[in-house]
Amino acid sequence: MSTAVAIVGSGLIGRGWAIVFARAGREVALHDTDADRVTASLKIVDASLRDLEAIELISSAAEVRARISVASSLAEALDGADYVQESVPEDQALKHRVFTEMDALAAPEAILGSSCSAIPGSRFLDVPGRARCLIAHPVSPPHLVPLVELVPTPWTSAETVAATRRLMEEVGQVPVIVHKEISGFVLNRLQAAVINEAMYLVDEGVVAPEDLDKTMRDGLGLRWSFMGPFETMDLNSDQGFEGYTGQYGASYQTMGADLQVARPWRDEALTLIDEDRRARVPAAGIAERQAWRDRRLMALLRHKAQAAADIGG
Amino acid sequence: MSTAVAIVGSGLIGRGWAIVFARAGREVALHDTDADRVTASLKIVDASLRDLEAIELISSAAEVRARISVASSLAEALDGADYVQESVPEDQALKHRVFTEMDALAAPEAILGSSCSAIPGSRFLDVPGRARCLIAHPVSPPHLVPLVELVPTPWTSAETVAATRRLMEEVGQVPVIVHKEISGFVLNRLQAAVINEAMYLVDEGVVAPEDLDKTMRDGLGLRWSFMGPFETMDLNSDQGFEGYTGQYGASYQTMGADLQVARPWRDEALTLIDEDRRARVPAAGIAERQAWRDRRLMALLRHKAQAAADIGG
Repeated sequence: MSTAVAIVGSGLIGRGWAIVFARAGREVALHDTDADRVTASLKIVDASLRDLEAIELISSAAEVRARISVASSLAEALDGADYVQESVPEDQALKHRVFTEMDALAAPEAILGSSCSAIPGSRFLDVPGRARCLIAHPVSPPHLVPLVELVPTPWTSAETVAATRRLMEEVGQVPVIVHKEISGFVLNRLQAAVINEAMYLVDEGVVAPEDLDKTMRDGLGLRWSFMGPFETMDLNSDQGFEGYTGQYGASYQTMGADLQVARPWRDEALTLIDEDRRARVPAAGIAERQAWRDRRLMALLRHKAQAAADIGG
Repeated sequence: MSTAVAIVGSGLIGRGWAIVFARAGREVALHDTDADRVTASLKIVDASLRDLEAIELISSAAEVRARISVASSLAEALDGADYVQESVPEDQALKHRVFTEMDALAAPEAILGSSCSAIPGSRFLDVPGRARCLIAHPVSPPHLVPLVELVPTPWTSAETVAATRRLMEEVGQVPVIVHKEISGFVLNRLQAAVINEAMYLVDEGVVAPEDLDKTMRDGLGLRWSFMGPFETMDLNSDQGFEGYTGQYGASYQTMGADLQVARPWRDEALTLIDEDRRARVPAAGIAERQAWRDRRLMALLRHKAQAAADIGG
């Protein structure tokens, strides 16, 4: 019998998780303390499923939708659940309270994951069943960006990590293990490195905001959409990674000392970038542009699957 | 009449530039002091053109190839050239000598660009015609990654920058202007920020090398292949860039102070990553994997053009 999943919290992240598990054939019980929010979320889920069907990433929106039910209480949501994904707001006390309740209600063998992005897990996962608790941090939105950071606390059992990794792979996500409770985990640290240096370069007048964005989307971001930085380095030398680091290591380390990722953001730079963005996409057009981004992500996922099949992954 | 282009230096970068200009309909004269290297390079150009034709990024490899001729001397290469792209090895004295010769030989209105990636232009572009000289730094390989960093020296005329930007856009590249001679320009600084932090995270045992790569290719790199970091931030809040920086600015700046991009690379980390790479792709398989990368880049470019037409750019 396939895993039954409970999603606790039906905001942007929770509703994305509902799609992830339901499209992979899992029965999903969705719970939120705010009934109106669930209703609103399910409308957005319906729209997302229609988009996924239109681009042929799923074969039937109706079949996927039929696997998502609303649970009117936490107890009802967790009844029979093998895996629970908490996605309530980023608030330590709230998350601790929710985990305490979930731990008391869930079946003994159920795993409890948190979508937490910034609070160290050990600050709110110290509940009686803490060995079956961990952070499973997705990217937004989870159904369009498959990466999931699994961050065990010191008390999380190895079995919990292994089973969660297996489940995530089964449902088509890409889990990675973060072995230490480091600020920002891995993904947001890499993102911060880029964003903070980008902010400095614009602030210093080195580059215009739009040109900085082009440098990523027509330069670095192409390779990084199908190869990580280490494989990129490995293939940029006929002698592989060792050859590359031998040739360029000194210059990377010199450059590293010159980067300004720790420099505070200045208001002048923020204003310049904000004005540039609003000149390109007016405030009233942001929602439409977000829909464009999601359609582009879907098309990219379809492309990557096809390219992996045709050319190799 | 369309621009005639001379390429000086026929290595990895020079031969990529030859494809860029020839596929856009320009007549290309390719020169190298080493005649054997030109012969070898043209064989690789032929193979690349066949791949581009197979994936329908060009309609006829033969027509493109017919526009590339070999010039046996620098004078012959520059005869009639409107734009010259120097792509000799990264050596300041060599580049200065080549620019001095090119400046003496080229027609007065010709523009002289350098593929230089690391040496400040003002160290070797101080020739009599320095107003028409600038750095035009490509990504490798130029015909598969369109970004070009245009870096004027203090002496480069505004007309030179504007005309080079126009030319690059005409031939399908994506030029950006780097307004200061900063170490690493823009692209390599962003790359160093990611690579150096990645090296630290592996060295600290936070994440395994392959999981670090997954974090990019199944996480951050998806959006970055069609949106830059600023647009990504802009669309991650319903209130746009201003809303996003208001909500997350403090945490990015806290994280920035915690990043370790200035930390020297440790041999233990380099060995760990190198061993992981070689376990995945043996040394003898690197060339084949490089060909895979290039085919994936071609497929991605075709996908991006199609997605921009279908969904919007």
